[in-house]
Amino acid sequence: MIEIISIGTELLTGQTINTNASTIAKILLRKGYEVEQITTIPDKGAILEETIIASMKRASFIILTGGLGPTTDDITRATLAKIFDKKLRQDNELAANLERQYGNACESLTNQATIIEGVEIMPNKIGTASGFILEKGTVKVFALPGVPIEMQEMLEKSVIPSLAQVTSPEYFQRTLFLFLILENRVDPHLRQLEKKYPHVEFGLCPSHGTLSIYLKLKAQTSKEAEEKFKPILQELRTRYKKNIFSEKDNTIESAIHKQFISRKLTLACAESCTGGLMSSRLTQISGSSNYFLVGLVTYSNQMKTTILNVNPRTLEKHGAVSCETVVEMVKGTLALSKADYAISISGIAGPTGGSKEKPIGTIWGAIGKKDSTIFTKQLTLKRKKRSTIIDYSTTYLLSHLWRYIQFDIPPFEES
Amino acid sequence: MIEIISIGTELLTGQTINTNASTIAKILLRKGYEVEQITTIPDKGAILEETIIASMKRASFIILTGGLGPTTDDITRATLAKIFDKKLRQDNELAANLERQYGNACESLTNQATIIEGVEIMPNKIGTASGFILEKGTVKVFALPGVPIEMQEMLEKSVIPSLAQVTSPEYFQRTLFLFLILENRVDPHLRQLEKKYPHVEFGLCPSHGTLSIYLKLKAQTSKEAEEKFKPILQELRTRYKKNIFSEKDNTIESAIHKQFISRKLTLACAESCTGGLMSSRLTQISGSSNYFLVGLVTYSNQMKTTILNVNPRTLEKHGAVSCETVVEMVKGTLALSKADYAISISGIAGPTGGSKEKPIGTIWGAIGKKDSTIFTKQLTLKRKKRSTIIDYSTTYLLSHLWRYIQFDIPPFEES
Repeated sequence: MIEIISIGTELLTGQTINTNASTIAKILLRKGYEVEQITTIPDKGAILEETIIASMKRASFIILTGGLGPTTDDITRATLAKIFDKKLRQDNELAANLERQYGNACESLTNQATIIEGVEIMPNKIGTASGFILEKGTVKVFALPGVPIEMQEMLEKSVIPSLAQVTSPEYFQRTLFLFLILENRVDPHLRQLEKKYPHVEFGLCPSHGTLSIYLKLKAQTSKEAEEKFKPILQELRTRYKKNIFSEKDNTIESAIHKQFISRKLTLACAESCTGGLMSSRLTQISGSSNYFLVGLVTYSNQMKTTILNVNPRTLEKHGAVSCETVVEMVKGTLALSKADYAISISGIAGPTGGSKEKPIGTIWGAIGKKDSTIFTKQLTLKRKKRSTIIDYSTTYLLSHLWRYIQFDIPPFEES
Repeated sequence: MIEIISIGTELLTGQTINTNASTIAKILLRKGYEVEQITTIPDKGAILEETIIASMKRASFIILTGGLGPTTDDITRATLAKIFDKKLRQDNELAANLERQYGNACESLTNQATIIEGVEIMPNKIGTASGFILEKGTVKVFALPGVPIEMQEMLEKSVIPSLAQVTSPEYFQRTLFLFLILENRVDPHLRQLEKKYPHVEFGLCPSHGTLSIYLKLKAQTSKEAEEKFKPILQELRTRYKKNIFSEKDNTIESAIHKQFISRKLTLACAESCTGGLMSSRLTQISGSSNYFLVGLVTYSNQMKTTILNVNPRTLEKHGAVSCETVVEMVKGTLALSKADYAISISGIAGPTGGSKEKPIGTIWGAIGKKDSTIFTKQLTLKRKKRSTIIDYSTTYLLSHLWRYIQFDIPPFEES
């Protein structure tokens, strides 16, 4: 059984979100190992000691992150030395290495050359803090640095091979990512499947306009797992054909990316209320320059007119948040970019700027294809905060664009 | 003592990042309460039971989130009923309310009207899952839904008032947010301060180009805390005058926002490799339309020429990632937008597209002021992943823009 212990006062003051634990859990599950518990504690020796001792009674593999940095509040090494009844010592080779890399080490860096006697070191090729492995009876403890990129490198190069030596992967999982469907429409169906396939664990998780269905089961081999998954996946794929946008990645932008590139199409966006989030999400994926031509964040009315050729009278008569404006934005974007498809969006993301006729959460979106009809839609996202409105409306528009291209379903048609 | 227990298999498969725990910790600390531990466990009755019982031995307040939804894997109610030896029953009033709101309830919704006998209900005005409070001896358990907006509403309306009845706030904190300075330059100084002020807890936390220094201390009143903080804050403010961009918010974009609005200035961006992230970060803040005019995500070379008037020969001769190109991008942006300031950025974010002369992580940025000098800088961000390169270079440019306006320090000057 595997547990994670995340160490860092900043995780308990809310200043830092614990993404490391999620990353570890995700990578381990992909390799067939399940994490049973994550405990997050401050940089305090006494609590750390108590937590590690309690965890050692339950788990056989414990992955610690954090508390190895060069700063004053890092206490992982000393606490582990105490629990495992070992001495701390300066490692000359490590010290020499650090000095070569970072010049004559300041006071802080000398910490980084301190190690527990007799541990197995996991080298850090990116930063200064080495990781290490301790063992007692049937329990293995892996101490990793808290810097995400260093942690991940060590996890993949050292922790997973070390796990694989002792225990074979036993969990297999599949995930289906859906959009444009609500949790309470899928849940009763999963309850039926659960009865039909009692050896499979089903999960359902909504997230800003998308929904993940996940399946997990135990099997000896991946072939056996494949056989067990087959009928269930078939049933789900048939039933949610027009809602499943991916079986790999929970971002709609990855699905869009694949589609545009494989069909050799191009895309341009004009954004107002989403402020560049749509462009940003699309271009987070490497290679997006192969299809994404331009994102025009025309935040002011003047810029809508100057760049996208939106008629000032349209803005005056109907306002920037209107069907007429988003249509002209799409037309202007198609003309300027010569892209095959264009999206536009304009709305009131709040928390100020709403009116009686156009309350906060009023969003107009448009999707257009070169020399073809332009489709428009008004969304009303009530009682949501600014970031959710921006995020959700981006996902909503991209979802309809994906379905338009994949199935030739006109955007915004109810399914 | 306060602990959080986060319930949800999706948190242990890495599909969902545990933002709820951070939100709770942050809000509680702002009110003077410290969270000592966060435990994250799957939707499994046996583990939940064991975790709650263990936590009840340590903590006097336990905040549970998740496992109250309408879906099949939500088990918080049943487990708590068992631990507290109470019965579950259907609440007719709650059922009637839900039916009024959501129509004739499907099978899933009936779950939501099940409550533990004798608990204090915390009403949910946004979603379907009510929260509740259980008490045993000196321990209070608060069960909240996992949906962030519902959780947060209940935390503020019910949990905090309930905490305040029993125990007064005792922790006070201050945070300073810095940029353009490294952790190992600040740490030795904090070690000195720690010796000088042993009653104060000091923390240091780097995050993508910014650094937070946090101070925490115990006091009876906020006035007493103020007095204790005063000399330390004075010392830090003097020493890091040109590095502290905020004492409230860890985002450089908030600092930019305040500056531009208070000085009645306007800003426009031209982005290539950052793909809209700069615009998106700036416009996440309500009211940004008062200074942010336009963001031009000219991803293709053609668009750099068409929209920003970058000379095709510049692109041909020097490439899109060059000093010459970012200068022309800034000039084009200033001319098109008529903004007071403009930023441009172009680089190779990877993981593909690098060359010997311009490896991945090569970034060119420029900052220009209307009718004034244009400043440029090349960054080389080695061995970083795409998202870090995009994020870090955005923060870097915004940091220099902030300092340029605040202190009239020419951008990119070493401090």
